[in-house]
Amino acid sequence: MSFSDNIRRVTPYTPGEQPQRKVIKLNTNESPYPPSPQVVEAIRAIKASKLRLYPDPDCRELRETLAEEYGLEPEQVFVGVGSDDVLSMCFLTFFAGKKPVLFNDITYSFYEVWADVYRIPFETVPLRDDFSFDPKGFLKENGGIVICNPNAPTSLEAELADIEKVVAENQDSVVLIDEAYVDFGAHTALPLLKKYPNVVIVRTMSKSRALAGLRVGYAFGSKELIKALHDVKFSVNSYTLNMPALVAGVAAAADREYFEETVDRVLVTREKTKEALRSFGFTVPESRTNFLFAKPPEGTSAESLFEKLKEKDIYVRFFKKPRLSDYLRITIGTDAEMEQFIKVLQEIL
Amino acid sequence: MSFSDNIRRVTPYTPGEQPQRKVIKLNTNESPYPPSPQVVEAIRAIKASKLRLYPDPDCRELRETLAEEYGLEPEQVFVGVGSDDVLSMCFLTFFAGKKPVLFNDITYSFYEVWADVYRIPFETVPLRDDFSFDPKGFLKENGGIVICNPNAPTSLEAELADIEKVVAENQDSVVLIDEAYVDFGAHTALPLLKKYPNVVIVRTMSKSRALAGLRVGYAFGSKELIKALHDVKFSVNSYTLNMPALVAGVAAAADREYFEETVDRVLVTREKTKEALRSFGFTVPESRTNFLFAKPPEGTSAESLFEKLKEKDIYVRFFKKPRLSDYLRITIGTDAEMEQFIKVLQEIL
Repeated sequence: MSFSDNIRRVTPYTPGEQPQRKVIKLNTNESPYPPSPQVVEAIRAIKASKLRLYPDPDCRELRETLAEEYGLEPEQVFVGVGSDDVLSMCFLTFFAGKKPVLFNDITYSFYEVWADVYRIPFETVPLRDDFSFDPKGFLKENGGIVICNPNAPTSLEAELADIEKVVAENQDSVVLIDEAYVDFGAHTALPLLKKYPNVVIVRTMSKSRALAGLRVGYAFGSKELIKALHDVKFSVNSYTLNMPALVAGVAAAADREYFEETVDRVLVTREKTKEALRSFGFTVPESRTNFLFAKPPEGTSAESLFEKLKEKDIYVRFFKKPRLSDYLRITIGTDAEMEQFIKVLQEIL
Repeated sequence: MSFSDNIRRVTPYTPGEQPQRKVIKLNTNESPYPPSPQVVEAIRAIKASKLRLYPDPDCRELRETLAEEYGLEPEQVFVGVGSDDVLSMCFLTFFAGKKPVLFNDITYSFYEVWADVYRIPFETVPLRDDFSFDPKGFLKENGGIVICNPNAPTSLEAELADIEKVVAENQDSVVLIDEAYVDFGAHTALPLLKKYPNVVIVRTMSKSRALAGLRVGYAFGSKELIKALHDVKFSVNSYTLNMPALVAGVAAAADREYFEETVDRVLVTREKTKEALRSFGFTVPESRTNFLFAKPPEGTSAESLFEKLKEKDIYVRFFKKPRLSDYLRITIGTDAEMEQFIKVLQEIL
């Protein structure tokens, strides 16, 4: 017997690299644009005398702003330190049963890490061969369901009707819908909230609102589920979002115009980049995210391309995993960055 | 069967009130002084273009600064979203066995909340009648130990020799020492780190470094234990401290002069306030924290005094719990605030 025997042993999630040098960084799905000028102003306006005080543990203003923006009540809104914190809290709160939680075999790889750390049994449901979503695998007994839509790292959107089917036929389970990328042209499951009390939608300000550095994630759900989430959150850490995150989140959520404008720019750049890649012979599925999931042309391995791009100071993401290792995940940067990326790619190919 | 059956039911911790009106706020042990001017400068210097990027998941610079400041190696330092996050991660990481974790019956009330949310068995060890620490209760089989020193809400310091006894006789358990208040004149267990690989010391920048609004906590321990803590942290949320928290934490940790000066001012005010309370007939144990734990004179109930102070816009903390309900916990504010507090108290009595 030693103290080591009581330690929780886990295999942690590996985040994308954060190179300290100046590179073209297309590997962690950040926004290529700065956040709303109102965010910057809100941070500049922080009073030194306020920093000594605890932030609002209820995150009231942020929850009210999000509720207003999305036509909900504040009691239907939960916020956390990025959507990872929100998802982690959801796993801990909603999946406390003994039956396995279901999620796709190819999806955000953090789901199985949370299942592992919280000792939640799980089973994976295969995507179809073309990576499209198949609701059938979710029509069996389970202790909860997680669907990432649009999915990562495939960039593909599931049909909302298929998602509704899963929700409707699993009314004894909480169905978590991870919409981290939904703002980039996909259909939200938000309308399902009105019909089903078992749905929770999780989102982030890290991508479409350019707040990765502030860590602001949020969730929408029925009052009952959001209350349960708050109870668990207040059993883990009363004050999660710090004061700069709260003021930045409010400012970002309220500036719809800037949000829509920058998202639109990303969409335009994405489509241009997709066409360029296809013209080089890449296989590129229709993305509804701020990244492309692209398979290099015959004769070029994704891994070697990943390495060669890195040598040229262009960072994309490569997953050394079954079914994924033929692809690269390429975040959409600015037009200038993507032109440089395409130029370097051309040189390599 | 319903989705409600899979929900984790918990009784959350209740943080002190955060009144929105302007009051004299002596209820959550914040610093009465703003953080170091260098913190304010670091926040002002944040570049808008950096907010869109994820913060450093390894929190390298902050860990290096703390290591340097306390004579440790960066691999012995863990940081989190306030010491609550750090403690929560410690409970999740180190107390994964089946034997009960031990902590005092009167101590930081969050310990039993974390034990509850993570389903960790625990037993409480009574303090002596005078609230002093008795090591004897910790000399039995256990799955881990938590000691808050100085203790909250009693403000009392345990003898370091007694803490060492507990550590030395429990080398098969991780012993967490919560030193949230140690900077206010108490003895740290830091020297024990060199002798015992089973010690973890947890601290916060919320009080002595006036960063409650930023949420920065930290832990020191052996490389083995800190590595285990990082593995679990990276299984929960890769990016916990946001960018403003990281830059503020570095600036606060590095400005030793300001830190010592403001802590000294709090100590002087504490002693003055203690004497004034004693002169009114209060029982006030020797505090080694930034608050006083004070029992009103015969004939005055702590609860009614708490209410009367609140009516006069002075917020202190009252715990409606056995052994605690005779006392008030009074955070040390500025000299002006404490003079006003004493004046109002005099009027009430």
